[in-house]
Amino acid sequence: MTKENIALWFQELQDNICHELETLDGKGKFQEDKWERPGGGGGRTRLIQGDLIERGGVNFSAVHGDLPDNIAAALKISDKQFFATGVSIVLHPHSPMVPIIHMNVRFFETSSGLWWFGGGIDLTPHYVNPEDATRFHQKLKDSCDAHHVDYYPKFKTWADDYFYVRHRKETRGIGGIFFDRLGEQDGFTRASRFDFVKEIGNTFVPIYKEQVARNTDKPFTEAEKKWQYIRRGRYVEFNLVWDRGTKFGLDTDGRTESILMSMPPTANWVYNHQPEEGTAERTTLDYLKKGIDWV
Amino acid sequence: MTKENIALWFQELQDNICHELETLDGKGKFQEDKWERPGGGGGRTRLIQGDLIERGGVNFSAVHGDLPDNIAAALKISDKQFFATGVSIVLHPHSPMVPIIHMNVRFFETSSGLWWFGGGIDLTPHYVNPEDATRFHQKLKDSCDAHHVDYYPKFKTWADDYFYVRHRKETRGIGGIFFDRLGEQDGFTRASRFDFVKEIGNTFVPIYKEQVARNTDKPFTEAEKKWQYIRRGRYVEFNLVWDRGTKFGLDTDGRTESILMSMPPTANWVYNHQPEEGTAERTTLDYLKKGIDWV
Repeated sequence: MTKENIALWFQELQDNICHELETLDGKGKFQEDKWERPGGGGGRTRLIQGDLIERGGVNFSAVHGDLPDNIAAALKISDKQFFATGVSIVLHPHSPMVPIIHMNVRFFETSSGLWWFGGGIDLTPHYVNPEDATRFHQKLKDSCDAHHVDYYPKFKTWADDYFYVRHRKETRGIGGIFFDRLGEQDGFTRASRFDFVKEIGNTFVPIYKEQVARNTDKPFTEAEKKWQYIRRGRYVEFNLVWDRGTKFGLDTDGRTESILMSMPPTANWVYNHQPEEGTAERTTLDYLKKGIDWV
Repeated sequence: MTKENIALWFQELQDNICHELETLDGKGKFQEDKWERPGGGGGRTRLIQGDLIERGGVNFSAVHGDLPDNIAAALKISDKQFFATGVSIVLHPHSPMVPIIHMNVRFFETSSGLWWFGGGIDLTPHYVNPEDATRFHQKLKDSCDAHHVDYYPKFKTWADDYFYVRHRKETRGIGGIFFDRLGEQDGFTRASRFDFVKEIGNTFVPIYKEQVARNTDKPFTEAEKKWQYIRRGRYVEFNLVWDRGTKFGLDTDGRTESILMSMPPTANWVYNHQPEEGTAERTTLDYLKKGIDWV
């Protein structure tokens, strides 16, 4: 399983997901920008602006070259050359009743043969519905359990910790799974890790389809749309202040338009917004906590 | 000139500026939130949402207590106790023809008697008008020149470097002045530094009044409003990714609602937005560069 094979599989994953999302949306078509990285490699950035999805980005990249010193230090490795490939997705739907979803799968390898996989899927409903949340987490758990019983509990907790908007003391959404540096520890092989990552990549569309099917026909009000814009503001705050992937990209002169495709089309900030007790907005805030066992 | 005197002067500055901004706006009134910092001190956060100013924040704070280790390390000092006071302002006008303005004046002192002033004023027009830019910089230069001939050239360059959106390769606006760690170097006294900082504080309202008077009656289109929202998105990017004050505040568990008062009410992101040649938007982008000598 060479790094080229892995990159090829990710590229096909991007193709498949884009195809299925176009079908799901019904109207939007992806537009593609191919780009090259001055230091080596490049990617395919794809954007959809449709009926269901107000703005969605599905990015593939495979880059290589000299490992910047600060990155090597942050990763605590001394290798000089790296290769990194992955698929990254954020979908912002029109309807505040349909959740924002994010997925990332990635592979990293250095010149000395050190390698690992990383990634995850997390869901950010504008309105948290416990039954939807349970279905989402159950599907992630099923995918994880097929590979190792420790995966779901470990990666679920990791997501709670990672997708945390510290300055707001709230989680970005209802979490999901997050994992990084999955290598040869504990008897795993490259093939077994890759099988797991493939499963996560393949489960993205069915998971989102279910969430969409359960919510897309719900009517919504102007006030609910306004609430969506405020929640999108929090999404912006997480991505620009805390997300390591975004920070890594901007710090290393990555392609800004591809990195910031995760930004929503419109976001609002309201000073000291406090939803009243008993409202659906307040209930949602109460669910934005670490450690909720949805399954 | 004790730290208490300085804090008192900043507090009065907040009062005066709020009073004058209410007059300028004509309709909006400031609402105030007083807050206390668990570790010591507190502040008065004031918000205006009026006819001219869609959202404006004028914050005063005076805080003290144990200096966190990471802050001491960043500042390269070994003191254990600190005192910090300042006034911080960001105004987002309704009209895209009227610029966003930011001002900050601050004073910092440690238990061993180390002290310095910092601050600045910078302007972010949605549409850059060279004559307005020259007037803005000329007024800043006049204020600086009254105190030291080196101030304006040094602090103008500092602002160009500080208010730089690195991942966009553009400045936040047309710059202004930025200064930090103005202490007893080069024969300056605490009194002479404070006199300068007072002048900057006092020049804020006349400077903004002039910019408003020259632009507030201009009509604008939906497309120009849309452009304003995109520029506000860049303002968000600068503040959340690069601004050290925001980062410092969020990292040290400052009052989030006061820190993020600089966020605009509404911001937009458009994938790969490229204004056409010959448009006012393209001309504006061409002015968002370091090193333009406006005076």
